Amino acid sequence: MKVLIVFAHPEARSLNGSLRDVAIRELEAQGHDVRVSDLYAEGWRSEVDRGDFPSLPIDARLGVAAASKQAFEAGTLTADVKGEIEKLLWADVLILQFPLWWFSMPAILKGWVDRVFAYGFAYGVGEHSDKRWGDRYGEGTLAGKRAMLIVTAGGWQDHYSARGINGPIDDLLFPINHGILYYPGYDVLPPFVVYQADRFDDAAFAAAAERLRMRMRTLATTSPIPYRRQNGGDYVIPSMQLRAGLESPEARGFALHLDRPDECGAADKPGVIRSTTNLRAVTA
Amino acid sequence: MKVLIVFAHPEARSLNGSLRDVAIRELEAQGHDVRVSDLYAEGWRSEVDRGDFPSLPIDARLGVAAASKQAFEAGTLTADVKGEIEKLLWADVLILQFPLWWFSMPAILKGWVDRVFAYGFAYGVGEHSDKRWGDRYGEGTLAGKRAMLIVTAGGWQDHYSARGINGPIDDLLFPINHGILYYPGYDVLPPFVVYQADRFDDAAFAAAAERLRMRMRTLATTSPIPYRRQNGGDYVIPSMQLRAGLESPEARGFALHLDRPDECGAADKPGVIRSTTNLRAVTA
Repeated sequence: MKVLIVFAHPEARSLNGSLRDVAIRELEAQGHDVRVSDLYAEGWRSEVDRGDFPSLPIDARLGVAAASKQAFEAGTLTADVKGEIEKLLWADVLILQFPLWWFSMPAILKGWVDRVFAYGFAYGVGEHSDKRWGDRYGEGTLAGKRAMLIVTAGGWQDHYSARGINGPIDDLLFPINHGILYYPGYDVLPPFVVYQADRFDDAAFAAAAERLRMRMRTLATTSPIPYRRQNGGDYVIPSMQLRAGLESPEARGFALHLDRPDECGAADKPGVIRSTTNLRAVTA
Repeated sequence: MKVLIVFAHPEARSLNGSLRDVAIRELEAQGHDVRVSDLYAEGWRSEVDRGDFPSLPIDARLGVAAASKQAFEAGTLTADVKGEIEKLLWADVLILQFPLWWFSMPAILKGWVDRVFAYGFAYGVGEHSDKRWGDRYGEGTLAGKRAMLIVTAGGWQDHYSARGINGPIDDLLFPINHGILYYPGYDVLPPFVVYQADRFDDAAFAAAAERLRMRMRTLATTSPIPYRRQNGGDYVIPSMQLRAGLESPEARGFALHLDRPDECGAADKPGVIRSTTNLRAVTA
């Protein structure tokens, strides 16, 4: 397979840098082709602004979605953005690797998303009408590909547990896994997360590295998080609200959008093969 | 009161720009002092890197938390970051205003958080031991001040509702409201959100502006989101998990961390005065 790692840490001699090298070595040992977008090393520009749309007239009001649509269709996005789009189309698997800063990705990686995920490429894809609300959430340009996160967190695992004060890690990552990766079509694998990243000793690193190698060996076979497909019948169109009664009685919030909330979500827990039973029951 | 608006949109002639001006005019009409950090206009730099820590030896490994702690204590953070810290200490109220891009803030605003919220200022504050896990989540440097979000979203309100496909807006904003604003001590007011931002006509704008003026007139009196205080007795120390039985039977995920989940969270819904009844019951 072809694997793209988008790496967002400013220090190569970091835990993130070491884990990235572990991942690359294991992937290459398995015969995969690996490319890396090292955002800091490459001086990635984070801010969406007029510079992204060089064909926009200088006195025109900048509407970001409209300008993105026009530039993507006309092929006038900037070279750095086009290069990343080409890599995304090349890769069978996308890995985003980053330290969790303030419960989300570092700005430079958010800027990669903001700039690369253009209108017509990652959103605004497909028919938008009263009958169909685009190709997204399980469909879209990147459907058929897989994606996963490699995340380091400074806090304790307990603090990110179901009752932990920070909120559950799977809920904190939902805006990324569901909103950024599943949205344009990726099958999203459970994230690889390490905690207490600032206190790693050799034994902790060895254990994390072995766990990561296992994940790299099972990229093709790990079951994705069973998010519900937008256009599979679970949602009312166009209000896009989940039909009543589909979820387990316990599900609330983000967990509504999992087909089998009880079996999924915990990082590193093996997923389940998504069945279409539920969809058939609804659309029948 | 003194109000700081941190504004993150690349186009002054945008809906965001117009709403910002509405807010400023209303605040000034009420006699408040208003300052604005216009991140795009000021050319804010988004990426945390070695440039943030000019006193770090050139060959030293960059550990971000350690470097941030050292630089904050020694007063060697960069001038732009120090300027923002000074504004945060000046302001009684902080408003973050931004378009929702990919279910979070634009990179430039995340970069403002990543760079300005230094160790010793916004995190790593207070005693960290087996008995106490720092001054955070309701305590900290910015305790006693208020904060709120002004957010524009392109999608429909239904898509962000309790059963909407994007996930509930209050859950999507939890990593910001709870993880970024409540963490260093702010009392966080319910967010001001407008939807279908790309389809605003004059009537929609007039209605939104009136709603925003009302929120600006009630900054001092609106009840904050009743997040639980870390050190008030609701959480086991040091695992920081919510004690059993405190939540309503319906609460799951992020909603566990609300003292009264049923009364809170919906944008623009009047909040409730937070009582300490619950804390007394637990600590008694």
